[in-house]
Amino acid sequence: MVSVPGIPDEEFIRGNRPMTKQEVRILTLVKAAIADGDIIIDIGAGTGSLSIEAALMASRGKVLAIEREVTGVELIKANAEKFSVENITPILGAAPEAMENLPTADVVLIGGSGGRLADIVSCSDKLLKPGGRLVINAVTVETLHNALQLTRSMPGYRVEACGVQVNRIHFAGSSSMFQAQNPVYIIACQKGDKE
Amino acid sequence: MVSVPGIPDEEFIRGNRPMTKQEVRILTLVKAAIADGDIIIDIGAGTGSLSIEAALMASRGKVLAIEREVTGVELIKANAEKFSVENITPILGAAPEAMENLPTADVVLIGGSGGRLADIVSCSDKLLKPGGRLVINAVTVETLHNALQLTRSMPGYRVEACGVQVNRIHFAGSSSMFQAQNPVYIIACQKGDKE
Amino acid sequence: MVSVPGIPDEEFIRGNRPMTKQEVRILTLVKAAIADGDIIIDIGAGTGSLSIEAALMASRGKVLAIEREVTGVELIKANAEKFSVENITPILGAAPEAMENLPTADVVLIGGSGGRLADIVSCSDKLLKPGGRLVINAVTVETLHNALQLTRSMPGYRVEACGVQVNRIHFAGSSSMFQAQNPVYIIACQKGDKE
Amino acid sequence: MVSVPGIPDEEFIRGNRPMTKQEVRILTLVKAAIADGDIIIDIGAGTGSLSIEAALMASRGKVLAIEREVTGVELIKANAEKFSVENITPILGAAPEAMENLPTADVVLIGGSGGRLADIVSCSDKLLKPGGRLVINAVTVETLHNALQLTRSMPGYRVEACGVQVNRIHFAGSSSMFQAQNPVYIIACQKGDKE
Repeated sequence: MVSVPGIPDEEFIRGNRPMTKQEVRILTLVKAAIADGDIIIDIGAGTGSLSIEAALMASRGKVLAIEREVTGVELIKANAEKFSVENITPILGAAPEAMENLPTADVVLIGGSGGRLADIVSCSDKLLKPGGRLVINAVTVETLHNALQLTRSMPGYRVEACGVQVNRIHFAGSSSMFQAQNPVYIIACQKGDKE
Repeated sequence: MVSVPGIPDEEFIRGNRPMTKQEVRILTLVKAAIADGDIIIDIGAGTGSLSIEAALMASRGKVLAIEREVTGVELIKANAEKFSVENITPILGAAPEAMENLPTADVVLIGGSGGRLADIVSCSDKLLKPGGRLVINAVTVETLHNALQLTRSMPGYRVEACGVQVNRIHFAGSSSMFQAQNPVYIIACQKGDKE
Repeated sequence: MVSVPGIPDEEFIRGNRPMTKQEVRILTLVKAAIADGDIIIDIGAGTGSLSIEAALMASRGKVLAIEREVTGVELIKANAEKFSVENITPILGAAPEAMENLPTADVVLIGGSGGRLADIVSCSDKLLKPGGRLVINAVTVETLHNALQLTRSMPGYRVEACGVQVNRIHFAGSSSMFQAQNPVYIIACQKGDKE
Repeated sequence: MVSVPGIPDEEFIRGNRPMTKQEVRILTLVKAAIADGDIIIDIGAGTGSLSIEAALMASRGKVLAIEREVTGVELIKANAEKFSVENITPILGAAPEAMENLPTADVVLIGGSGGRLADIVSCSDKLLKPGGRLVINAVTVETLHNALQLTRSMPGYRVEACGVQVNRIHFAGSSSMFQAQNPVYIIACQKGDKE
């Protein structure tokens, strides 16, 4: 078993990119059941916040972080350096094309799909080892719906899903204000053990 | 029975002030059971969005809109003009002092209390007619807690409360994104019929 | 303009059927912009709670309440009697077949579709007058997704949508517990004014 | 660093007791920053679900699980046996009295306070080592409010808080229904490093 670092959001270098918030990162990684030594593919890695924590959890494993924006890849590198993480390989490109030639994986995380979710899920299925985990984060109705349709129709996969809405409490003087974060849906799938 | 206008948020003139959003406005006004002819006191009226809809509902009644910022009073006036509402009287001042000399009321709405909630609730109780309604909107833990403590301890009042969290669906191209709004708690109280 | 009654949930006769809760009923009806005199078609009327409040709002109009279960139709009749509402006609049957021979309508409410949403929306479009409103309540990912797809692709319709999650505050002794209700998505559409 | 097990809810033996759900358990434990070897005090341990996962995380440490109901203590023992966890000591009794004679701790978790929150927080402060973590789960307005008041006034503590609302997606045939869980507020505090 390996730990979830739970790094606070503000410690990541993020430019002006959207970033998966701490609570959702934590739940995504625990539902991905990351083990030390795991090979993890992070698709739509963005700032790399999820990749960094995954790499810390799988310290003897490796994270392949696919990101289609150059500024994203730079943020991943900057964060990897800041947190002294050496087992991340940023890959500039768009999935599923950028997934070609990748090794088989224990975990695939999908944070962004650029409208190619069906191809990416199909490609992830091919790369996933038996017993491997596929975890999709959805922030749109379409991704939520399509992720459920696609994964529930894959033979041998066990699928569970939940929506998480976090309200941070913001202290302003003696007041404690409820401050909403956008809800994120987490679709967590486990591939069957037999080929 | 009178209608709830349900004016869209973007139709109000609001400057850069925070504003109660449409869904919360609607629920607040229906829970206040506003009837035509009602005298309504709106405390912490802000942009006047709640006051405007209340005034439209109680067209033969009157809304007294207490607001401590001059810019707020100006927004209330501008919105009253825009929606051709003549039965609103903006009152520049802070409650509870600004509640002195007000007539007895059918409804008191509390949207902001400036840390004086206990005095305002006590003063509202004195102004409310038998059977009158007191509805408090809370966006902080302290206001929620104190509103419940204060109102539940007032003899003869029936109190109910709920929290409302709205996620607007934002259309961006073919995507429909979940977009969180801060939760608001609505504490709705009805004074007993007997003096 | 007409009022939203906002009847408390416990006042409806409901047997053991699920029922749209008060806050969602209120928002649905206000977003449907029901006016007195309106012809309203309520599809999947269930206990009739939405139909009853719509009928009270449109007192000189009429509500046609389609419900495919006999027990549902009986609940609608029982509630109509309890609230002395005479302008509701319960129709036993499944939409869209049960929508044949209905008059043109100002408002169509869809609370349940039995897997026939596309046909029901298409049929609703034919029945709706110019400027008419179509409001869909969704409690599943599929209905939310399909309702957005279908309505956003209908020429001349303006579509907005939001999710509403209510947490009732339950008083137990001196404690005030947060008590979740299932979220409901409201898809509100307005047909263009021109044919 | 140590892992968060993330045991599914249905694997715990729970009788008919309420239980902290998986997602909230995970976030509570990560925010408590449990390290292997930690001494952890779990107050209001209930079924022991939080204690079990904490004990697995701190395998060379120890969890002291205070629970005032005999049936609760029996559930903790049954779950400890089921998950082969040997580093939990259930303590039958009510806090703060049951906290007497306990060793100093790295982490105190408060899941239930029986109306004695102020005394329990004060007692936790005395037991916590410098740098130790105090994490309170609140399901009522009063606990949320009081936890914030108490912890924010303790010199040298850093306090953060958030509310978490999870909607599980329930698969019924081809439908995916949103199914609400009650929101839980997590107040996470870290004691200053210096005595």
